[in-house]
Amino acid sequence: MGLSFSKVGIVGGTGGMGEWFANFLEKQGYDVYPVGRSTELTPKMMARLCDVVVISVPIPVTIQMIQTIGPFVKERRLLMDLTSIKQKPLEAMLAHTDAEVVGVHPLFGPVENAEGQRVAICQGRGNSGLKWVKKVFDTGKLKILEMEPKEHDRLMGLIQGVNHFSTLGLAHCIRSSGFSIDEIEKCSTSTFKRRLDRIYKLLEQPADLFGSLLIDNPESLNYIRLYRDVLNEMIPIIENKDHDAFQKLFYSLRGE
Amino acid sequence: MGLSFSKVGIVGGTGGMGEWFANFLEKQGYDVYPVGRSTELTPKMMARLCDVVVISVPIPVTIQMIQTIGPFVKERRLLMDLTSIKQKPLEAMLAHTDAEVVGVHPLFGPVENAEGQRVAICQGRGNSGLKWVKKVFDTGKLKILEMEPKEHDRLMGLIQGVNHFSTLGLAHCIRSSGFSIDEIEKCSTSTFKRRLDRIYKLLEQPADLFGSLLIDNPESLNYIRLYRDVLNEMIPIIENKDHDAFQKLFYSLRGE
Repeated sequence: MGLSFSKVGIVGGTGGMGEWFANFLEKQGYDVYPVGRSTELTPKMMARLCDVVVISVPIPVTIQMIQTIGPFVKERRLLMDLTSIKQKPLEAMLAHTDAEVVGVHPLFGPVENAEGQRVAICQGRGNSGLKWVKKVFDTGKLKILEMEPKEHDRLMGLIQGVNHFSTLGLAHCIRSSGFSIDEIEKCSTSTFKRRLDRIYKLLEQPADLFGSLLIDNPESLNYIRLYRDVLNEMIPIIENKDHDAFQKLFYSLRGE
Repeated sequence: MGLSFSKVGIVGGTGGMGEWFANFLEKQGYDVYPVGRSTELTPKMMARLCDVVVISVPIPVTIQMIQTIGPFVKERRLLMDLTSIKQKPLEAMLAHTDAEVVGVHPLFGPVENAEGQRVAICQGRGNSGLKWVKKVFDTGKLKILEMEPKEHDRLMGLIQGVNHFSTLGLAHCIRSSGFSIDEIEKCSTSTFKRRLDRIYKLLEQPADLFGSLLIDNPESLNYIRLYRDVLNEMIPIIENKDHDAFQKLFYSLRGE
């Protein structure tokens, strides 16, 4: 017999991906109880009340929140998170609750319509919760990627860590160049304009979101160092004006 | 009395931006004579014949082409180029012809409709040629940026040099990570997917195009080194898990 997952509480449900997930579930007919700083409902009250408890708070406070409310989520219920790293939150959830556990990472921002977007799912404990999570994302027409938490975090060290690190580095380089942003804007190629737009979008978001992706996923540092190392390999080619070596590198990146 | 610029010859006029410029001018009613590897018309013949001679060959052979045909472009005519660097081609044009000289760099790729796109123009010698160049781009509704060649190359060292260098570095990092491109593709966030698309587009193009932007614009190396330096400044913040320092850096990039 399957378990009943009809009441879903979301800590951090009044903003960002928590709010997105609340809307997503409400469209499917679930009773959703979002908890935020200004809601009367507290995380603990919600954890006692709901069949599914979702953690969607910033990475640095995720473990702490799991420790606080995990013990209130009873057996035969489901504790899950929406964090961009998976290993540590899963370990914490397994340690601090007897409920079923699933780790989830939607690989996109809070978009109006997430059809066709991807979501990574890591199994924790139990099958009913996992089945339910897969069902709701299936119903919403998302692409589900089941993976190991360790593997997820390694991939995200590259996909999120290096990505945001290199974009922030470009912003830092522009700011350190001595050019005004007006000069740069005025003379941008169409390709560079797209990178500027990405920088502006990134800098609009909370600092700790990116700080956490770089710092709290221990795999990020490995790939950031790899990025630094390959750049250091490329620089002498330019210093030596070595067109042949550049061509060889370029072809190797093409897989030739 | 203005000079007559009705017959326009383009070396490299059968591909890339040369072909784009040929179509652009033909739409405005000019007689255009494209020269390529497979045309019967040779660069020298064309240079004798035309009122405007446009150099649109890869950067590494641009100076050589200017030296070869510059002397055949007569006084009261116009020699111009479409190269992504401006200082060296301008110096070469001024040295190897008595004609009027203008340096041009369209800040976009060969697009169907270039309305609203930007084009950098550097004055070389004479006013009639410059006036003509500005008129044709004005008529095509492009945004004209008049600038010094040295300033242009400095800006492009950042806008093209660091941009392509960091993108190639990301491609190199992905290839060196041990992940297969299928794994990466499958788990990409929407932001990372856009960077992958840019990598694929870049690697489709000729290797020497990017090699030249990085190597033959001497300003590129300066900004590539600056990029390396700011990354090396950022890495200890991550190594030390210093959320406060990260936040400070993030706010400073926002201009706060």
